[in-house]
Amino acid sequence: MKIALDAMGGDHAPSVALAGAIRAVTERHLPVVLVGQREVIAEELARQNAQHLDLPIVHASEVIAMDEHPSAAVKAKPDSSMAVGMRLLKRGEVSAFVSMGNTGGMLAAGVLLLGRIRGVRRPALSTIFPTLQGHCLLLDIGANADCKPEYLRQFAIMGATYAERVLGIRNPRTGLISNGEEESKGSELVQAAHQKLRHTPGLNFIGNVEGKDIFEGTADVIVTDGFTGNVIIKLSEGMGNMIKTMLREEFRRNPLAMLGGWLGKGALARFAQRTDYSEIGGAPLLGLEGVVIVGHGRSNAKAVMNALTVAHRAVEQKVVPAIRAGIEDTVQGGTSANT
Amino acid sequence: MKIALDAMGGDHAPSVALAGAIRAVTERHLPVVLVGQREVIAEELARQNAQHLDLPIVHASEVIAMDEHPSAAVKAKPDSSMAVGMRLLKRGEVSAFVSMGNTGGMLAAGVLLLGRIRGVRRPALSTIFPTLQGHCLLLDIGANADCKPEYLRQFAIMGATYAERVLGIRNPRTGLISNGEEESKGSELVQAAHQKLRHTPGLNFIGNVEGKDIFEGTADVIVTDGFTGNVIIKLSEGMGNMIKTMLREEFRRNPLAMLGGWLGKGALARFAQRTDYSEIGGAPLLGLEGVVIVGHGRSNAKAVMNALTVAHRAVEQKVVPAIRAGIEDTVQGGTSANT
Repeated sequence: MKIALDAMGGDHAPSVALAGAIRAVTERHLPVVLVGQREVIAEELARQNAQHLDLPIVHASEVIAMDEHPSAAVKAKPDSSMAVGMRLLKRGEVSAFVSMGNTGGMLAAGVLLLGRIRGVRRPALSTIFPTLQGHCLLLDIGANADCKPEYLRQFAIMGATYAERVLGIRNPRTGLISNGEEESKGSELVQAAHQKLRHTPGLNFIGNVEGKDIFEGTADVIVTDGFTGNVIIKLSEGMGNMIKTMLREEFRRNPLAMLGGWLGKGALARFAQRTDYSEIGGAPLLGLEGVVIVGHGRSNAKAVMNALTVAHRAVEQKVVPAIRAGIEDTVQGGTSANT
Repeated sequence: MKIALDAMGGDHAPSVALAGAIRAVTERHLPVVLVGQREVIAEELARQNAQHLDLPIVHASEVIAMDEHPSAAVKAKPDSSMAVGMRLLKRGEVSAFVSMGNTGGMLAAGVLLLGRIRGVRRPALSTIFPTLQGHCLLLDIGANADCKPEYLRQFAIMGATYAERVLGIRNPRTGLISNGEEESKGSELVQAAHQKLRHTPGLNFIGNVEGKDIFEGTADVIVTDGFTGNVIIKLSEGMGNMIKTMLREEFRRNPLAMLGGWLGKGALARFAQRTDYSEIGGAPLLGLEGVVIVGHGRSNAKAVMNALTVAHRAVEQKVVPAIRAGIEDTVQGGTSANT
């Protein structure tokens, strides 16, 4: 097994991506292949004293930046690290592809160059969300602004499969975001999706969940359309930033509070750690014909290492074949109407 | 001018509602009329030593509870305090109606007994949201799970009118929630609404805003459909609770952190105050033929007083006639297609 890493992806590429790859090889003995500009990578590996490590490089001359238009960039740059990595995966030369780069670019490259699992209507972007109990998997967070009920059902099947096999949650509780817990609540889309989810065999559907339930840890997998999901993650990010700013301002307001903040800084740090993405590393693009993991652009080396570990586990646990089987079941079961 | 207060509304009615009314009369000389069960109210006023105050009571024999189904309850209880208060407003015997009770009940009573402003397609629930800069008005937060572009345009007109006249924000910056700032981003609904908002005369439309922008204070008025808006407020509530719980857990973990938390408790308290709804009091139901303000069920006396103050200002500032004129303009302008 080999895992390709986009050496050019992330806010601090290639240094952070390579630092993560080095840790993955030395600490966890993962078989990593680097994709990107050979000379830039070799120079950075030397700078980090890692030229002796078993870190093969597959050259890709172009780079897709964080702020580029995803599908346009993928088409305009056929030799980008994202495109090259995705083609390696398509040809079976690697078993998974990991990037901390432009999420939309990875999605576009995945759809165009790797392809969807047969029967999957739309691939979904997922993310791992902190809760009071631990974490949950939230999807779709932006690939599909307009969804049909069947898309949401497939998101549930794919998310539950991933949560069970990679996150190690048995029979994951799967919820549907709505504006009220009752079955009768929700937009037309959500009401129709609710009925489909209720009648999906093998799915542990716990019904509608509200925004507040996400953090309570009520569900292990939370399904929503890409518009709502994107609003949720950006709102959480914004609220987290606001709270940090306000706490900092208030703790700096007088010497006593400053002392309190200093004494309590361990507590504040542990609080920050509990909501830290770097413990998780990355989340999957689900519905593609291969394991594709995308991490946060601000990832540090530890997050990159963890993303590579997640990719390794997803391959070992045969997530893609399991999703293929789950989707086939519903399609063959005749329950997959064109809605 | 008289302002009716639902004495039976809120988690701790009637005591908290009446305590708020007493403060409104004594501290702010507001002309408050109490609506609810006469004997219960009289007894509670006596208990709070306020029987001498000018607080007339209009009797209503029934009460709509916080957890009742809104429209069913309004129909089943024609003599509820909500129905009686709304009819007082309809007949012009009071100029505004305030409740800390069941929000859906107030909306249903408003639509059924008071009626919509001519031309308004759907009334909207709004809320006042804390930001790093102060506050913003967010609507719709749950009245309309499925919206059309024209509804969102009317929400913008109504919200901007309220923000200008009652919140005192000149030419309020009005944004549309989307999953990206670019005009091309968004669901089909949001893309169509964006075009309508861009071409609404007199509206200071600043374009799409993302979840994170809400807390930055980028916009004064933020427009979204009732499904997304409801998810936003419940997510924020849930995240706030999670953060408080985690901070408490971490600050209790060892003696040093406990001391830090104790020394910093002023900072933590000020932090809590900056996100405190009781400073605001209540938010309007917009699009009805009268001033209707709904506060949080957990409101304290100060929040009730502030909600009554907000209602008073909305009447003085002629919010309803201003919204009527704003809606008429767009309807007559022929720009209000049936979409």
